[in-house]
Amino acid sequence: MEKVLTGDRLAAARAITLVENEEPDAEEVLKEIFPHTGKAHRVGITGPPGAGKSTLACELIKFFRKKKRAVGVLAVDPTSPFSGGAILGDRIRMSDCFTDPGVFIRSMASRGGTGGLAKATQDAADILDAAGMNYVLIETVGVGQEELDIINISDTTIVVLYPEAGDRIQTMKAGLMEIADVFAINKCDRDGAEQLADEIKVMLTLRKDLHGWEPPVILTQGTTGRGVDALARAALGHIEHLRKTGALESRRRKGIALKIRTIVEASVARALWLGEENQKKIDEAVERVASRRETPYAAAARFIKRFRKG
Amino acid sequence: MEKVLTGDRLAAARAITLVENEEPDAEEVLKEIFPHTGKAHRVGITGPPGAGKSTLACELIKFFRKKKRAVGVLAVDPTSPFSGGAILGDRIRMSDCFTDPGVFIRSMASRGGTGGLAKATQDAADILDAAGMNYVLIETVGVGQEELDIINISDTTIVVLYPEAGDRIQTMKAGLMEIADVFAINKCDRDGAEQLADEIKVMLTLRKDLHGWEPPVILTQGTTGRGVDALARAALGHIEHLRKTGALESRRRKGIALKIRTIVEASVARALWLGEENQKKIDEAVERVASRRETPYAAAARFIKRFRKG
Repeated sequence: MEKVLTGDRLAAARAITLVENEEPDAEEVLKEIFPHTGKAHRVGITGPPGAGKSTLACELIKFFRKKKRAVGVLAVDPTSPFSGGAILGDRIRMSDCFTDPGVFIRSMASRGGTGGLAKATQDAADILDAAGMNYVLIETVGVGQEELDIINISDTTIVVLYPEAGDRIQTMKAGLMEIADVFAINKCDRDGAEQLADEIKVMLTLRKDLHGWEPPVILTQGTTGRGVDALARAALGHIEHLRKTGALESRRRKGIALKIRTIVEASVARALWLGEENQKKIDEAVERVASRRETPYAAAARFIKRFRKG
Repeated sequence: MEKVLTGDRLAAARAITLVENEEPDAEEVLKEIFPHTGKAHRVGITGPPGAGKSTLACELIKFFRKKKRAVGVLAVDPTSPFSGGAILGDRIRMSDCFTDPGVFIRSMASRGGTGGLAKATQDAADILDAAGMNYVLIETVGVGQEELDIINISDTTIVVLYPEAGDRIQTMKAGLMEIADVFAINKCDRDGAEQLADEIKVMLTLRKDLHGWEPPVILTQGTTGRGVDALARAALGHIEHLRKTGALESRRRKGIALKIRTIVEASVARALWLGEENQKKIDEAVERVASRRETPYAAAARFIKRFRKG
């Protein structure tokens, strides 16, 4: 896999497929590339569906490409244009990003809840990092625990919102406020954009975990590129701030802790739940529980015992 | 905990607190009540923020209460009026539900990603079931894996949508289409409600996993009660269909399998990640990985070994 380290796109793509499919060779690859990771700036781009995350990501990519930097994109949202799941118009508008050889785009498929998606996305980011990408953009719909686990591997998290009726405050409360390092108020030509920006600024005054960084709130319009330079500079300013204050190190340590944990949990899941033999054990246990001969807790205890025995 | 079985509200509330906090006594309680579960009709109510899930749930509650049935509500969404997280107007409008002694309302707080929320919600549903609730409504924002795990414990899943610009199809694609047994097109006085209903009906023709049940698409208006009778009857019709065809049994078995799994995973998480001593081990491992002396995979392997040794 030394080809990954030379920036070979096909090798990187293959390596990501290995980790996505949890192939036996995946771990070996990841071990080899691991010493070469930690250089890329990982930028999470998250927000509700329809906020224009992909369009904005594409504009950011153009900004970085003008500076001759290599950019990787991991699209976790299956409806993202980057995942091929979107309407043709979006893809046409974004064609610059799709055809640029300095841009590596990859859709991360949604998985079956073993923490597999968060782990695979982290590994894919490592691979793109080792392959020499200067920026790795990770696009997700920012709701749910697995999503948050993915966002947690970002150095900088951009939350993209847009002016729409009433519900936005609710959505933000549900978690996006807490994770944002930079806000983009996209579709800023619409009514209410500035009001939304003001609301967010007020809400930010309530945040306590900012460590000297005040998340900028930037008006953008992905379809015209308006505000994109300011957004890119805000993201760069954020990582610069992290570096200066030592917060980058502590943030990445959190990412490492999360990564160790997802590997462990995926390994337990593999040992206990996947494969034919495991399925038989599960079916037997379900039968006993369904007939109320055993509680789910007693059944679970047997599975744990089984795992401990290896 | 025989008090739970007599329907004592305070006892039920205490039992739910035990499971939420993962108190040592929780398992004993759950073992005792377990033989008395399986009677309630569990109805998941899910959909994007702002769709009016809580208002609609409140109308459903009134419908069931007219028939003198006891109703429990588990609000997983922290922004739900049932969780106390909403604007005063909503709570005033829903005051009938809050003051009715035949309605048990409980907010399930969001947790730290150990599958704890899904497990706690399942356990809470079991407690309300054993406490004699005829219906247990579970309100969630239907995005993310943990959310889906919660919805999977429902007998009937109502997906609430509302007419709004463009983004809804995207949202649905992302998973809500697949889990709906009944659709409510809420805020149906708005433009585009019937068009949205038609779109969904078209999309439903593509679904293959329906097993003889065609999800009804019902126009509702939670604030006036319009369409609520039809919605309630659709939910009742769905569980009747499941009972007749034997699908209820197989669906609940899936729920049991999921429950066993969440118990196992929560137990692994407790053994490895919680507490001071574990934190020290994690810090040491993170230190080694951060300095690139060890890969996350090697660190994870040591944690697994540690768990196996007990």
